[in-house]
Amino acid sequence: MKQYVIGIDIGGTNTVIGVVSRAGDVLASDSIKTRDYPSLDNYVTTLSSRIQALSDRCGVSGNIEGIGIGAPNGNYYRGTIELAPNLPWKGVTIPLAQLIEGRTGIPTHLTNDANAAAMGEMTYGVARGLRHFIMITLGTGVGSGIIVDGNLLYGSTGFAGELGHVIVDRTPQARLCGCGRHGCLETYCSATGIARTARERLSYSVEPSLLRRIEPDKITSRDIYDAAVEGDAMAISIFRETGIILGRALADMCVFSSPEAIILFGGLAKAGDFIRRYTEEAMNENMLNIFHGTVRLLVSGLKDADAAVLGASALGWEKVVFEQNNVSSV
Amino acid sequence: MKQYVIGIDIGGTNTVIGVVSRAGDVLASDSIKTRDYPSLDNYVTTLSSRIQALSDRCGVSGNIEGIGIGAPNGNYYRGTIELAPNLPWKGVTIPLAQLIEGRTGIPTHLTNDANAAAMGEMTYGVARGLRHFIMITLGTGVGSGIIVDGNLLYGSTGFAGELGHVIVDRTPQARLCGCGRHGCLETYCSATGIARTARERLSYSVEPSLLRRIEPDKITSRDIYDAAVEGDAMAISIFRETGIILGRALADMCVFSSPEAIILFGGLAKAGDFIRRYTEEAMNENMLNIFHGTVRLLVSGLKDADAAVLGASALGWEKVVFEQNNVSSV
Repeated sequence: MKQYVIGIDIGGTNTVIGVVSRAGDVLASDSIKTRDYPSLDNYVTTLSSRIQALSDRCGVSGNIEGIGIGAPNGNYYRGTIELAPNLPWKGVTIPLAQLIEGRTGIPTHLTNDANAAAMGEMTYGVARGLRHFIMITLGTGVGSGIIVDGNLLYGSTGFAGELGHVIVDRTPQARLCGCGRHGCLETYCSATGIARTARERLSYSVEPSLLRRIEPDKITSRDIYDAAVEGDAMAISIFRETGIILGRALADMCVFSSPEAIILFGGLAKAGDFIRRYTEEAMNENMLNIFHGTVRLLVSGLKDADAAVLGASALGWEKVVFEQNNVSSV
Repeated sequence: MKQYVIGIDIGGTNTVIGVVSRAGDVLASDSIKTRDYPSLDNYVTTLSSRIQALSDRCGVSGNIEGIGIGAPNGNYYRGTIELAPNLPWKGVTIPLAQLIEGRTGIPTHLTNDANAAAMGEMTYGVARGLRHFIMITLGTGVGSGIIVDGNLLYGSTGFAGELGHVIVDRTPQARLCGCGRHGCLETYCSATGIARTARERLSYSVEPSLLRRIEPDKITSRDIYDAAVEGDAMAISIFRETGIILGRALADMCVFSSPEAIILFGGLAKAGDFIRRYTEEAMNENMLNIFHGTVRLLVSGLKDADAAVLGASALGWEKVVFEQNNVSSV
């Protein structure tokens, strides 16, 4: 078995490539602007040559076990990206793993970005040794990766684990989600969701707040965090409200897969105790009795800059494991 | 490998024992009244001697591969019944599998009743050949068994798949559940839940209904079904309301495990199209786009009288499968 893998994290803005060792060290990384490549063929060509160049630079060409790709709406079974609204390529289904494997000659696996984060956490992070956990990524949206018996839960379609779209509000006031439905978790507990909560609060109340210094449309989750750090009551209360919604939803998820831990990851998770404390309280208060005390709430331990690439790279080691489980036959 | 298994279904009222062949035929069955045995020791002794007598009667003694038990709050990992409010024995944890195995000398596995139903459906019913499905049992409560990659999902505690306790109403009017929380699915979509809906409707409205002939406290799900069959508008509307709540909850479950099918089982499932049609409509209307058209709603095909015992008996064949998956090491 070879000693290195390539991790690729594809986002709407950047595509980041890293060479990763067995120990989880990122030897070197590179990036290209995803949007600069409206032609899929050019994108694949550039990405492949950058992979080669990066491997050469590290002196590890010929010693690459596999390539792992994390991408929005990535499908592990098919190695495709499907219906991803923020990526520039036309077509419903992009067979990206096959294209990259064809160009590089290196076995390539692809999954969605939240699943990649879960793999990364299990391989290099706080989930090492855990057999059952749920990774919740709190970014622009809310994503998730569910680990059952040490394996990612893909389900019949390869899209299992879309927990950002569990419905947390069924009232007529529930927020509209990008998916076209109302009341999805991610409309409240993502970076954009919490900013939306702040804008609503500012418009519905006359409560003083540091947030009033910012133009409402420009408020970000970072601004709310900064205000909370300065002791702003409204900002803290917004984190509390968000944490309660998230914690209740997490308690609900536990009745499904009975995880040992739920791990928070991504931008909003960096708000630390402002989000974690209220989330944990609400999760424990709403936990079904038989699961009391069985689920820990953890925050990702992966280094910020490397997390996405590490997560994707973990998939580069995955091939053998998945073949053992016959997932490849699905 | 031997040719028969024993299936045991333990309920608060009856304990039913059956001898089951590889083909899923129940050769013979017997039952005892669970409540007649407040002494656990007497219960185990009687159950064991009945198993022996039944095997002798069928001429299959010495040809029994295993015993499978389905019981409320059964824990597969530990072979125990834990915190089951409707069973007569004192003590938080009843090590029933071990006790029966010790008395009979036959390998014994135990799981909760809904998991047993899922096993039965996969081994003998409409789920044969499915790798990913969710069994929903609509009885006095709502239970579930989740099959992932052909195996029951037990999670870290052995209690995974308590989908009767997902929260479907987070408003202040949400119904109190036996678990001590509010708004659980089973307070609306169980046999007792739908009867509660009927009582509420009768008290809040003056709408005429055949159900007004019955004393409110005595209304059962069967009465509502009978009224619906006669074209009673209120009864049909109660099924519609129940189906909508259930269908929405099922759509939410699909984002978790992306099943090929959801299978309804138990008393309320027998209401046929009165419950199925509205449930399916609501499930499809509320399905996340990437899962559109991927999930079938099925009704259990197991014969009524044999279903519970068949489900439990399926576990009698299970041992080897679970050892291959190293679940025994958990």
